[in-house]
Amino acid sequence: MMLHEELEFAKKLALEAGEIMRKYFGKSPEPEFKEDDTIVTIADKEINQMVIDRIIKKYPEDGLDGEEQSHNKESDRLWVCDPIDGTNPFAMGLAVSVFSIALVIDGAPKLGVIYDFISDRLYHAQVGSGAFCNNDKISVSQEILNEKSRINFDWWPEAEYQVITSLVKLSKDKRVYLLSPGSTTHMAALVSRGEFVASIFSGTKGKNVDIAAAKVIVEEAGGKVTDLFGDEQRYDRDIKGAIVSNGTVHDEIVEYLKGDLL
Amino acid sequence: MMLHEELEFAKKLALEAGEIMRKYFGKSPEPEFKEDDTIVTIADKEINQMVIDRIIKKYPEDGLDGEEQSHNKESDRLWVCDPIDGTNPFAMGLAVSVFSIALVIDGAPKLGVIYDFISDRLYHAQVGSGAFCNNDKISVSQEILNEKSRINFDWWPEAEYQVITSLVKLSKDKRVYLLSPGSTTHMAALVSRGEFVASIFSGTKGKNVDIAAAKVIVEEAGGKVTDLFGDEQRYDRDIKGAIVSNGTVHDEIVEYLKGDLL
Repeated sequence: MMLHEELEFAKKLALEAGEIMRKYFGKSPEPEFKEDDTIVTIADKEINQMVIDRIIKKYPEDGLDGEEQSHNKESDRLWVCDPIDGTNPFAMGLAVSVFSIALVIDGAPKLGVIYDFISDRLYHAQVGSGAFCNNDKISVSQEILNEKSRINFDWWPEAEYQVITSLVKLSKDKRVYLLSPGSTTHMAALVSRGEFVASIFSGTKGKNVDIAAAKVIVEEAGGKVTDLFGDEQRYDRDIKGAIVSNGTVHDEIVEYLKGDLL
Repeated sequence: MMLHEELEFAKKLALEAGEIMRKYFGKSPEPEFKEDDTIVTIADKEINQMVIDRIIKKYPEDGLDGEEQSHNKESDRLWVCDPIDGTNPFAMGLAVSVFSIALVIDGAPKLGVIYDFISDRLYHAQVGSGAFCNNDKISVSQEILNEKSRINFDWWPEAEYQVITSLVKLSKDKRVYLLSPGSTTHMAALVSRGEFVASIFSGTKGKNVDIAAAKVIVEEAGGKVTDLFGDEQRYDRDIKGAIVSNGTVHDEIVEYLKGDLL
């Protein structure tokens, strides 16, 4: 099943979202705190609303699962969108945040787009067609866990899965450099172009929006994306975190994480 | 002692360094690995050389302690410079890296400049005159350690001081959000404008270059900068890591870190 029209639609949305991000970035948009103490800005809300408007107009039967607001969420064809992944750094004027959107059909992401508005890098992939950054084919690294490799992690004290102790052990054992810039979707994109060997994400409730697009892009670039236990999962509902990797290091990370998860 | 001329000189250097960073950023400059497995790019070297050239011409008696190359390092008046703090993210096209320079006299930083070339934010301070970002006065936050506060950390497996276990404990106890974007100098600048409550740095050998400018800027913004044990230190030689904070949370962090350091 080819989804050329949908892919072009998603890429256009991403560029439009990027314009909104540029409008607010560095202007210190005053953040608010949501009920779960996570942060949101006016830019997140404006992008989320724009995406809903565009989908209703173009694909009136489709649904949207958006981080800030959703629409017709029970549709089989579900767009899954994180308007700004990395709202915390965005609100600080730290340029690591991205927009992402995926088209999920019956639980499986079929195409994904991630846009880094700072470096003007547009990542896209659809299942079976390879992964691209600004239309150049990209692929994951072949690196193993060693002193020249980097892992991103996104963990916070309230996270359901406490992966941090295992990650620190892995880092010490293998001499891997740990970073946490604050946008799991962007770091997944950097896995797809071989910069990180892996990215570990602790998110669960409502956090399918962070990984759905990355699932397609990273796997089409030759990598692997599973939940924290190494299993496949659906992306139209809550997830059990994520391991996003170059494939080579995947099983080894699953083994390490067992320490915290069991 | 006012150092107006030196401050203007340092600000000009910072903007010139920013031009070089822009020239290479996103072009994926091929990194090399130094003997200690840390990374360097052509951009780091070009900026370091530019700084040496300008200092020799303007202040022939002064010395430079640069991360990649030094000059007349025994001078009492020592410029301390990190051409690119955050070479790892810079090489990945992740926009978090900054330039920084300080003028250190007899071990004490007297003025500091940090430049974020992405957001075009120029931070500066000299002792006794307040701290500024693009000429607006800035100050640290009054926040305590809680679920709305953020701490940056820079730690790696080979670090002499293993602060990570204590930091994870602090994060869990106080619900503080931990980030590690990969530029300790930039995150210190964000402490000075109230975004992070603190930043913890594990660097020792040759790592005075990461903190010298931040020492002046953060303290002039009302914060506090010490080594990892809570003590003052010189910035013309190796350091014992750093705690860069808003002042309010400083002693509490010192207490937590004792767990790993003793």
